[in-house]
Amino acid sequence: MKLIIVGGVAGGASAATRARRLSEQAEILMIERGPDVSFANCGLPYHIGEIIPERSKLLVTTAEKLRERFRLDVRTLSEVVSIDRARKSVSIRDLKTGNTYNETYDKLVLAPGASPIQPSFAGVDLPGVFILRTLDDTDRIKKVVDQGAKRAIIVGAGFIGLELAENLVHRGLAVTLVELSKQILGPFDAEMTTPIVATLQEKGVELLLGQSAESIKATNSGLQVRFSSGEERDTSLVILGIGVRPENQLATKAGLETGSRGGIKVNEHLQTSDPDIYAAGDAIETSDFTSGERTQVPLAGPANRQGRIAADNVFGRQSKYRGTQGTAIVGLFGKAAAMTGLTEKALLRLKWDYRKVYIHPAHHAGYYPGAEAMSLKLIFEPKTGKLLGAQGVGGEGVDKRIDVLAVAIQAGMTVIDLEEMELCYAPQFGSAKDPVNMLGFVGAGLVRGDHPQIAWETVGQTASKAILLDVRTPTEFGNGHIPGAINIPVDNLRDRLDELNKNQQIVVYCQVGQRGYLATRILLQHGYQVVNLSGGYKTYLLYQPVASR
Amino acid sequence: MKLIIVGGVAGGASAATRARRLSEQAEILMIERGPDVSFANCGLPYHIGEIIPERSKLLVTTAEKLRERFRLDVRTLSEVVSIDRARKSVSIRDLKTGNTYNETYDKLVLAPGASPIQPSFAGVDLPGVFILRTLDDTDRIKKVVDQGAKRAIIVGAGFIGLELAENLVHRGLAVTLVELSKQILGPFDAEMTTPIVATLQEKGVELLLGQSAESIKATNSGLQVRFSSGEERDTSLVILGIGVRPENQLATKAGLETGSRGGIKVNEHLQTSDPDIYAAGDAIETSDFTSGERTQVPLAGPANRQGRIAADNVFGRQSKYRGTQGTAIVGLFGKAAAMTGLTEKALLRLKWDYRKVYIHPAHHAGYYPGAEAMSLKLIFEPKTGKLLGAQGVGGEGVDKRIDVLAVAIQAGMTVIDLEEMELCYAPQFGSAKDPVNMLGFVGAGLVRGDHPQIAWETVGQTASKAILLDVRTPTEFGNGHIPGAINIPVDNLRDRLDELNKNQQIVVYCQVGQRGYLATRILLQHGYQVVNLSGGYKTYLLYQPVASR
Repeated sequence: MKLIIVGGVAGGASAATRARRLSEQAEILMIERGPDVSFANCGLPYHIGEIIPERSKLLVTTAEKLRERFRLDVRTLSEVVSIDRARKSVSIRDLKTGNTYNETYDKLVLAPGASPIQPSFAGVDLPGVFILRTLDDTDRIKKVVDQGAKRAIIVGAGFIGLELAENLVHRGLAVTLVELSKQILGPFDAEMTTPIVATLQEKGVELLLGQSAESIKATNSGLQVRFSSGEERDTSLVILGIGVRPENQLATKAGLETGSRGGIKVNEHLQTSDPDIYAAGDAIETSDFTSGERTQVPLAGPANRQGRIAADNVFGRQSKYRGTQGTAIVGLFGKAAAMTGLTEKALLRLKWDYRKVYIHPAHHAGYYPGAEAMSLKLIFEPKTGKLLGAQGVGGEGVDKRIDVLAVAIQAGMTVIDLEEMELCYAPQFGSAKDPVNMLGFVGAGLVRGDHPQIAWETVGQTASKAILLDVRTPTEFGNGHIPGAINIPVDNLRDRLDELNKNQQIVVYCQVGQRGYLATRILLQHGYQVVNLSGGYKTYLLYQPVASR
Repeated sequence: MKLIIVGGVAGGASAATRARRLSEQAEILMIERGPDVSFANCGLPYHIGEIIPERSKLLVTTAEKLRERFRLDVRTLSEVVSIDRARKSVSIRDLKTGNTYNETYDKLVLAPGASPIQPSFAGVDLPGVFILRTLDDTDRIKKVVDQGAKRAIIVGAGFIGLELAENLVHRGLAVTLVELSKQILGPFDAEMTTPIVATLQEKGVELLLGQSAESIKATNSGLQVRFSSGEERDTSLVILGIGVRPENQLATKAGLETGSRGGIKVNEHLQTSDPDIYAAGDAIETSDFTSGERTQVPLAGPANRQGRIAADNVFGRQSKYRGTQGTAIVGLFGKAAAMTGLTEKALLRLKWDYRKVYIHPAHHAGYYPGAEAMSLKLIFEPKTGKLLGAQGVGGEGVDKRIDVLAVAIQAGMTVIDLEEMELCYAPQFGSAKDPVNMLGFVGAGLVRGDHPQIAWETVGQTASKAILLDVRTPTEFGNGHIPGAINIPVDNLRDRLDELNKNQQIVVYCQVGQRGYLATRILLQHGYQVVNLSGGYKTYLLYQPVASR
């Protein structure tokens, strides 16, 4: 068996080492265009920020180590320029010498990754304008920062854009983040990004939403960026992080099928349209675990799994890829935003029926010092309560809850199952009723009909007709409430029922939904038409612009 | 409906509030023997340690608040002394006045909890000898500490014993921990407690294993405890934490069935042998989620769930309790030990066939600063790989992995499923191959036969015949190895195969198992008889006495 693997980072490196474990006899070539194999892409922004001061830490392994330990024929600075599928041969250009030569293969694994989208406006090729993909890119950006850059403009407020913003703030730069869309962190539902917007503002990051960079020009002191609003900003450097596209040129040139967004098409065994060619990592189109839709999700975890599965199949094992769930997290100034499964916007696009609930718990028992706040959103099927997706934002413990929910989604569990979850509890780690149990209680209450709830968007649509009833204390009400609301504290509600009209729809809310739930139960049992605002006033705030809060 | 609930803490309080949400009309009495309802049991040691300085924080709610918000008829300092099942009436003693009166019920929920086992040796009733169950107990212990106690002896090294040890060290006391068994933390497998023993020693806690306290006497300066070894120790105070037993006197007196260890017997609806009487919390016997065995597990999470489920059934809802999984965690000086499902010792007792693997990963990507070490043990069915139990010990992130595994066990998942888990990854939060995935890889390798592994105990039994092959570097080998091992680094193994005998069993090991896995694959493919020591040298160390390391 002669196996050639194109690409030596996540998917490629996983495929190569797995292949060697499966066969001591196979001839395994790993062809990598760049100078480094298996480097820590996800660590690059943190090296710029000097949170990871040693560059060497980013080299997860080296070509030399892979040769020694795995007897891989690793060829760096070598580019596969074409595939001759009929002859089962690839043409490889040695980037050091410029020479091109051929290698035949029995099986080929393509793991070329994805490349940052390079916009085409004027000035993108000026010195001081960067993309971030490789260690070399990292070195170039870091050098400018080390030399005392004062201002940075980051174009694109996705995962990498935010991580760069944090790290540049950490290095003392004034950072402007420009995003074409009306929200940061595109994969999330917009309201769940509100606490992260607040954090960015607290840290002094200027955020320009709904705007694009239109041109960059060199000035005496550095660069000047012009935005679609007509505004201009001086800056020391610009980093473009507007997304990635699959590296599919090699595949398309060879006539392999690609999807509508350019990803290399593979079956569940990660086999391309040529049975002797497999593909893995950011360059492929996979199916969404939950919806079954074709999707392209550039994530390190799936890339590693895919590399392993591709190697399995090369050696005749029928391993299957289950699809990508889209579990992802970003950390930012000690906060985190994490997600798994389908978002509300994906469900709206798919026209699937769904319900959602919000909770705003502390990450551990409130009586133990240091409890940090988080907001969780859970999306599920209306009748069965089957879990479809979850998102979380807050401080400590967000990753834990999203991981737990990721497994629950993989297992096909329902909100009812979440009620019964038995999770670790000691006051430093959680609550006797963990946030995951709380999501179960609130979701199951909705599914069972015990706890009718309304989403804030829908309240907005019917607010003129409904009574908006704030059941918090007068003090809380006085500190801020939803416009138009009346106030009857839940503890007085039973004695003041006659103030409410049984023929009118009532929307109850409290701070996080818990007192609202009791109020809803009281009113329901007394014959009122009532729904509880899911997640209460805190959910309402997620929908308000940060500046106005 | 007139519902009487006996007990006002976790199970009782959950049952009462759930009952009110289900029915505004019901008459609900909550009878609590102590002065406080719904206090934070799990926080008591931390108040003594002044990590939770305000006593008021331990009062999760008050009788007054429950009356106001839930219209509960809360009667504290009131003890239900007997049940007349024929008349459906209970006799209640008012502990403030001594008067006794009767109340009838339609349904009764028993949630009296468990009480610390009070040993009977000489001196247990001396001043300065305490148990810890209530807020009053907490006040009494804290007062002695506040008055400048210098030394404490804690009898029993279970969860509460360890939490007390941490908190008393925190207050500057010299602490001796005495445990009858040969290990601390009885619910865990012994080897998984080794890192916690090491932590206790680092913090100066004196640990006396395999010993009991035999008598206590008063001295001029305080107390003196005599141990079974004949040794004596002076101390300022003694806290007895040798376990709890279900408060079943009321139930047994009323003729309700109890199990062999005294827990009140209930069906899956938490109904006792009297269909009008339900029971919840630490006083009941439940079934183990994984094995189906009858069990008694005093944990806050299950108690809360049981309270809710009992109330559901009181009001005609057929909610079922799924059984107790035994998910538990203890924090200690920044370390954690956590478990879920069946332990190896439970499986040995049950005579179930099982396999186990160990890994020793970092809690997040090693290249990001601050990665903390942990050890994980996973137990599963030999053929199917179905998960049976997991234990973890280490720093940050142990709780997350055990929670994820708890859900996987609930879902009936296998080690193969763990390979495919898609969990949150950014370098601050995890690894592209999360520890949970790693458990899957290692476990699935065992199930599939790709990666034959051996447990350390078994190596010990056959070591005289097998070659013990250390595949780490000479430096690592020189820093400490398993007695009798020979050293061939994995990177040289292919060139030195002729040094090994094909007719002899080889046990390979490295530091954590990963290089050993590759070495095993190399040797297998060259026709050697080989197994890898699961978890490598670090697992071996778990089995060595702490002092000898």
